[in-house]
Amino acid sequence: MTADISSQALACRDGAQPLAEMPTDARRALLDAMAARLDAHAEAILAANARDMEAAQARGTTGAMLDRLRLDAPRLAAIADAVRHVATLPDPVGQVTREEVRPNGIRVRRVRVPLGVVAMIYEARPNVTADAAALCLYAGNGVILRGGSEAIHSNTAIAAALKEAIAAAGLPEAVLTLITDLSRDTMVRLLQLTDLVDLAIPRGGEGLIRFVAEHARVPVIKHYKGVCHLYVDAAADLDLALDLLIDGKTSRPGVCNALETLLVHRDVADAFLPRAAAALRARGVELRGDAASRARVPDMAEASEDDYAAEFLDLVLAVRVVDDLEQAIAHIRRFGSDHTEVIATRDEAAARRFVAALRSAVVMVNASSRFSDGGELGLGAEIGISTTRLHAYGPMGAESLTIERFVVEGEGQVRHPLRATDS
Amino acid sequence: MTADISSQALACRDGAQPLAEMPTDARRALLDAMAARLDAHAEAILAANARDMEAAQARGTTGAMLDRLRLDAPRLAAIADAVRHVATLPDPVGQVTREEVRPNGIRVRRVRVPLGVVAMIYEARPNVTADAAALCLYAGNGVILRGGSEAIHSNTAIAAALKEAIAAAGLPEAVLTLITDLSRDTMVRLLQLTDLVDLAIPRGGEGLIRFVAEHARVPVIKHYKGVCHLYVDAAADLDLALDLLIDGKTSRPGVCNALETLLVHRDVADAFLPRAAAALRARGVELRGDAASRARVPDMAEASEDDYAAEFLDLVLAVRVVDDLEQAIAHIRRFGSDHTEVIATRDEAAARRFVAALRSAVVMVNASSRFSDGGELGLGAEIGISTTRLHAYGPMGAESLTIERFVVEGEGQVRHPLRATDS
Repeated sequence: MTADISSQALACRDGAQPLAEMPTDARRALLDAMAARLDAHAEAILAANARDMEAAQARGTTGAMLDRLRLDAPRLAAIADAVRHVATLPDPVGQVTREEVRPNGIRVRRVRVPLGVVAMIYEARPNVTADAAALCLYAGNGVILRGGSEAIHSNTAIAAALKEAIAAAGLPEAVLTLITDLSRDTMVRLLQLTDLVDLAIPRGGEGLIRFVAEHARVPVIKHYKGVCHLYVDAAADLDLALDLLIDGKTSRPGVCNALETLLVHRDVADAFLPRAAAALRARGVELRGDAASRARVPDMAEASEDDYAAEFLDLVLAVRVVDDLEQAIAHIRRFGSDHTEVIATRDEAAARRFVAALRSAVVMVNASSRFSDGGELGLGAEIGISTTRLHAYGPMGAESLTIERFVVEGEGQVRHPLRATDS
Repeated sequence: MTADISSQALACRDGAQPLAEMPTDARRALLDAMAARLDAHAEAILAANARDMEAAQARGTTGAMLDRLRLDAPRLAAIADAVRHVATLPDPVGQVTREEVRPNGIRVRRVRVPLGVVAMIYEARPNVTADAAALCLYAGNGVILRGGSEAIHSNTAIAAALKEAIAAAGLPEAVLTLITDLSRDTMVRLLQLTDLVDLAIPRGGEGLIRFVAEHARVPVIKHYKGVCHLYVDAAADLDLALDLLIDGKTSRPGVCNALETLLVHRDVADAFLPRAAAALRARGVELRGDAASRARVPDMAEASEDDYAAEFLDLVLAVRVVDDLEQAIAHIRRFGSDHTEVIATRDEAAARRFVAALRSAVVMVNASSRFSDGGELGLGAEIGISTTRLHAYGPMGAESLTIERFVVEGEGQVRHPLRATDS
């Protein structure tokens, strides 16, 4: 009964055309209707989620994984609200980003248009089904959703609810296509449909992302991991630095914008490290440091090279004392993942140098790494984070699901007038 | 003697860091110096080109190919001038594209930074060596140039001249790396250096581009071909339409923004087609049409499906009479290459519909397809054209060789203040 993946993608692409031509208000109304259907079908969605939860428990899934899969009435209401929130964002589609009249009189505008078809490849969290659908459709794109097998019932129920709203809006349901054949073969075929899929965005563990990057022939935007650094400069306000450290490491250690490594200038290491270690340990954080750090903090474990390259996603922090700003920069260039780096300093020149020398997608001066998030940075919502230095770099919102093209208006201008008119 | 391609790319990437940090004036001075070295070494470059020309003639290379390879004093002077022109363009590096203070007081800026390392894969024309180097370096990127074997002596001589200016500016010469090992194996390895190369841009025949797209693991921006359409609407000014047709088809038939297919509304077919055919034939253009076109123009050959999909790059034009605007749109959706489409009409509603319904990178109303070019559209210079709907769409200038990242400044803001301060 399942259509071939190529036919499904073609139907999604064809369905995206009328969507792309819908005015802003109609796309907003569509998202509001999608949210309403999620509310209306809450019972069915929660029942489907219960089936996924049972199966996961039967497989012996652990607490954090299980919690990511779990829906309840408040969580589902929050998912519907997130869809409504996307509908309030500025509409990127049709935005004129630049306009110029050239010397020959042609008017050149650059206008944002949807990408076309976006394939989301993700794991576990069923909220991605609704979040990604809302952002992709709002930006005028068809969306192909390929979630994980552990959430298949939840994803199917959520997609069914959303499709009711899509059909009611007079759009082809295929504009939102949930892949239910979860074989790796089918995923690989999807990722190689270069004429039908404009972008693939993988979200999940590093293994999934590497699989997608390896097999895709369509463009992929991704980030593998977030090895985020806090550098406490010689000129840092140490109270402020401590706030950034505790927030960055402990407020939600399992996310990609959590801190993984602390670098401390040697001039403030005596004053900062013992305080920092006490505060972190009081919150259950394990520290792993170099010799200079361990000399200042009793019972600190020794950090290996691997620790400096690690995204712990846990209450573990790698620590190193550096000689100066340049050594901190060299460390981050070597071990960083181009995600997010933070400097704590009152020295403007040091801040400028830190920002200029590092190529990471997000660089913070005296602010927590945890702000490296589409919502916090003002994008309104986030479809993913890119550490690919192309198209988007850092958190991606609705605008990153569009592309600027050229629209030119003239009055018959030609490039070689003499040739054209001597007819 | 040739370093391994991976070491070369690493040296290019490391060299790009100080380049990226150079102020605008210094990068402008670098380009001016590069142009001066091209002038100073004109004799050596032309001698090297003579060797390439001899070898090409010995291989029996034909007129157009040979002409593309050929340099002379005026052409070389024009190449140097093009480098100087790039130095006059607005500098994209460091541009703040957006700035916002969030409710919590953090200041979020989006700032343009270079992509990193750009690999150009190209054929024949030695001017690409200087053009691509100038644009990539101006935008703060390292550049790896992999030209064709037919131009190896010319490219080597041009690169040597440019490298003198690079060294004189105190930059590592590797910031411009010309690959002299032209084996396919080495090209494939270059295209798979995902940690070192940020973007590959292939320019040349469709065969080369497909080879790059197939083997690359790094992001690729490309266009395969330009099947550009002119649609003459029922409400067209037919004199104007004729100007666009002649300019689009005959002013330079061998380029990607030349017209390949003419679509004519049936209401104006009687009035337009015989005139158009006479004017085109007077300029040596061969016409291939459907039955309705052939009924109006004596001795017109029959067009096949292949003709409608073809990029002739020659004085050949496919012709079709359509029932209405929607049939023209459907034709272009089916046979187009997402490059450039033109409508000739005085009907604003028809123009709006044509622009909205087509997803091509450049859509023109009453202007020649030949304006689909970085210089003509106001980019100043062009590194290539993208029909990939990601990062850039249409002609790409210096700005397309940069990416926006986030720079955040705070005063100690954290995401979860209660947790952070109760230390």
